[in-house]
Amino acid sequence: MSFENLFSKRATAIKSSVIREILKVTARPEVISFAGGLPSDASFPVPQLKAAFEKVLNDAPQAALQYSTTDGYAPLREWVASEKSKLGATITPDQVIIVSGSQQALDLIGKVFINEGDKVLVETPTYLGALQAFELFFPEFVSVASDEEGLDAAQLTAEQAQGAKFLYALPNFQNPTGRLMTEARRQALVAKAREYNLLVVEDDPYGELWYTAAPPPSLLSRMPERVIQMGSFSKILAPGLRLGYIVAPVEIARKFEQVKQATDLHTATLTQRAVYEVVKDGFLDEHIPNIRKLYHAQAQAMLGALEQYMPKSVTWNQPAGGMFLWLRLPAGVDSEAILKTALARNVAYVPGVPFYANEPARNTMRLAFVTVPEDKIREGVKVLGEVFGG
Amino acid sequence: MSFENLFSKRATAIKSSVIREILKVTARPEVISFAGGLPSDASFPVPQLKAAFEKVLNDAPQAALQYSTTDGYAPLREWVASEKSKLGATITPDQVIIVSGSQQALDLIGKVFINEGDKVLVETPTYLGALQAFELFFPEFVSVASDEEGLDAAQLTAEQAQGAKFLYALPNFQNPTGRLMTEARRQALVAKAREYNLLVVEDDPYGELWYTAAPPPSLLSRMPERVIQMGSFSKILAPGLRLGYIVAPVEIARKFEQVKQATDLHTATLTQRAVYEVVKDGFLDEHIPNIRKLYHAQAQAMLGALEQYMPKSVTWNQPAGGMFLWLRLPAGVDSEAILKTALARNVAYVPGVPFYANEPARNTMRLAFVTVPEDKIREGVKVLGEVFGG
Repeated sequence: MSFENLFSKRATAIKSSVIREILKVTARPEVISFAGGLPSDASFPVPQLKAAFEKVLNDAPQAALQYSTTDGYAPLREWVASEKSKLGATITPDQVIIVSGSQQALDLIGKVFINEGDKVLVETPTYLGALQAFELFFPEFVSVASDEEGLDAAQLTAEQAQGAKFLYALPNFQNPTGRLMTEARRQALVAKAREYNLLVVEDDPYGELWYTAAPPPSLLSRMPERVIQMGSFSKILAPGLRLGYIVAPVEIARKFEQVKQATDLHTATLTQRAVYEVVKDGFLDEHIPNIRKLYHAQAQAMLGALEQYMPKSVTWNQPAGGMFLWLRLPAGVDSEAILKTALARNVAYVPGVPFYANEPARNTMRLAFVTVPEDKIREGVKVLGEVFGG
Repeated sequence: MSFENLFSKRATAIKSSVIREILKVTARPEVISFAGGLPSDASFPVPQLKAAFEKVLNDAPQAALQYSTTDGYAPLREWVASEKSKLGATITPDQVIIVSGSQQALDLIGKVFINEGDKVLVETPTYLGALQAFELFFPEFVSVASDEEGLDAAQLTAEQAQGAKFLYALPNFQNPTGRLMTEARRQALVAKAREYNLLVVEDDPYGELWYTAAPPPSLLSRMPERVIQMGSFSKILAPGLRLGYIVAPVEIARKFEQVKQATDLHTATLTQRAVYEVVKDGFLDEHIPNIRKLYHAQAQAMLGALEQYMPKSVTWNQPAGGMFLWLRLPAGVDSEAILKTALARNVAYVPGVPFYANEPARNTMRLAFVTVPEDKIREGVKVLGEVFGG
């Protein structure tokens, strides 16, 4: 039996993530990979998670293993609301929906807002996983001008904003570039969103991972009436748990709840309760500074190696937090074409192209640096310097 | 800000599950509820799950807490393939995709197959959660004639089958009716599927929960080349884990993998590994017989009470497994209208209407019986008998 003619238009159109395909190639142990987007497993709080799962299964096994409500475990939603209220705007628990990882939040956002052909505004470049999630619903992506300081709302025209369902932004240490949206740019975005009556999706998995100074206040804290914020426990606890949340205006939160019910009923009860046990008494206040210190050291190793080994024609940014930086080869050089040469010498990265919704800058690439030991960072960057300089 | 005009067509159309709304009303402890679809929490293997989570977090914490592959934990996929191969047809691990509960399988099936207006064949009545998942993609549902013996393929016309993306069937102890598709009906369905070149989705969360005799062999074992089978750990371990799987022809499994990647990246690594620890050495062979015994006793209590208290005008089926039975009031009586009277006397059930994709039988209802103590079953059925007879 052939199934080609049975697949939906979206299933026919979908392609595997370029990154996942590269990761398959780079699974060989001799490869130094700057390609993956994985957090460092040295940051996982194993004893705390072990104790939490044990405690929940001791104290409330029946409730923890039974079906539960679609919006999520009430104490965890209350915890999120309380955390998010610390920056000023009051967030209530009925604005919070617990999700099975941030990627599911993207799927729910696509389902709740996007009809075929609807306009969605994105950064240039933007997170590949968001493009993939939204593409299942056939939006028309409009790339908003962006640079080292993040999305540049001053260049967002009324025509671009007209009819847009939402603007998708990653203000903190963006995947893929690692850039941070400045205070001025945030103010400009808030002003433009109000002027154009725009809904803004703020994706913030990396905001806590700053090196020396916290980022400016979130978009959510500045205009909670028109921001959907996505958060995740993947980078501050562990991604294998698949746990995240959405904060949204109540009317939108109720829609997410209805759509999530049809999508997966609810997020794993046991996991929600265990994570609540881990976070409820302030553990993250002692834990996250350790991740910051580790990632800062990794970033410094990467920046030092780039300084030492890259030819003068290559440029990159200085991330102030997160897991990535963005490298530019000379104009006209194609980072996809050159990847083969790097892979042949056992070093991997992700070319910039798949992160662009529209016209890509083919000379760009993402370098991830938090999982590679410092000596391997130097070794890998040395090879890349030779490949790019050769 | 008003969001009405931003919601997608599917978000505007979606309604909350009738069942979840009833469940909210019936959360009061004095209510005897035959409405919920929950498994009995007495069946959850708490010590085994506790030991499994502890073992995984001791033995492989980094891998268990890290991102992992979209198709699922390889040993668990191998286990599923090996279990499914026991009935004859050889199932390979590359046909298996681990999902975040069966509801997610329905979402992925909707995404992979349904364009707006596509025909989907369903039983009469059928599982409400499937209707809700598929409805996000705007199919045209065609209800195939069904009775006590399950879907009646003899009544499936060539015209009905023409252009259908798939037929969705629940052969074993169907939710909502509890009915079992007979051997003859399975043979007839297989013949018709071949004749009409139909893809069949076999949803099987309850197949292991037989009381005195195993069901006839699965549709998957009879025609693996055209069956997508959905399975779940919710009813044989615990639903709060949110863990299930899909078995499909390889070409379709790869599409599910691509679409799942965009939907939630992958299912929780820790949960997959813990469940594999629980099932890998045959634990289910000793565990499931206990669930069967428990549910059989619950069914007998329900059937005995119905026999004792129902007026002669009311009829019901004799389930041979599972968690539900289907009750018919006299023609012309509306089970939705009468629910208020039952709720006023603190007894709840789910009216049949939401389980029909097309023309509903308004005199029907689903009774769930595995979570209510036997004395409460008698008490609740006595009240219903008075309500229906009065």
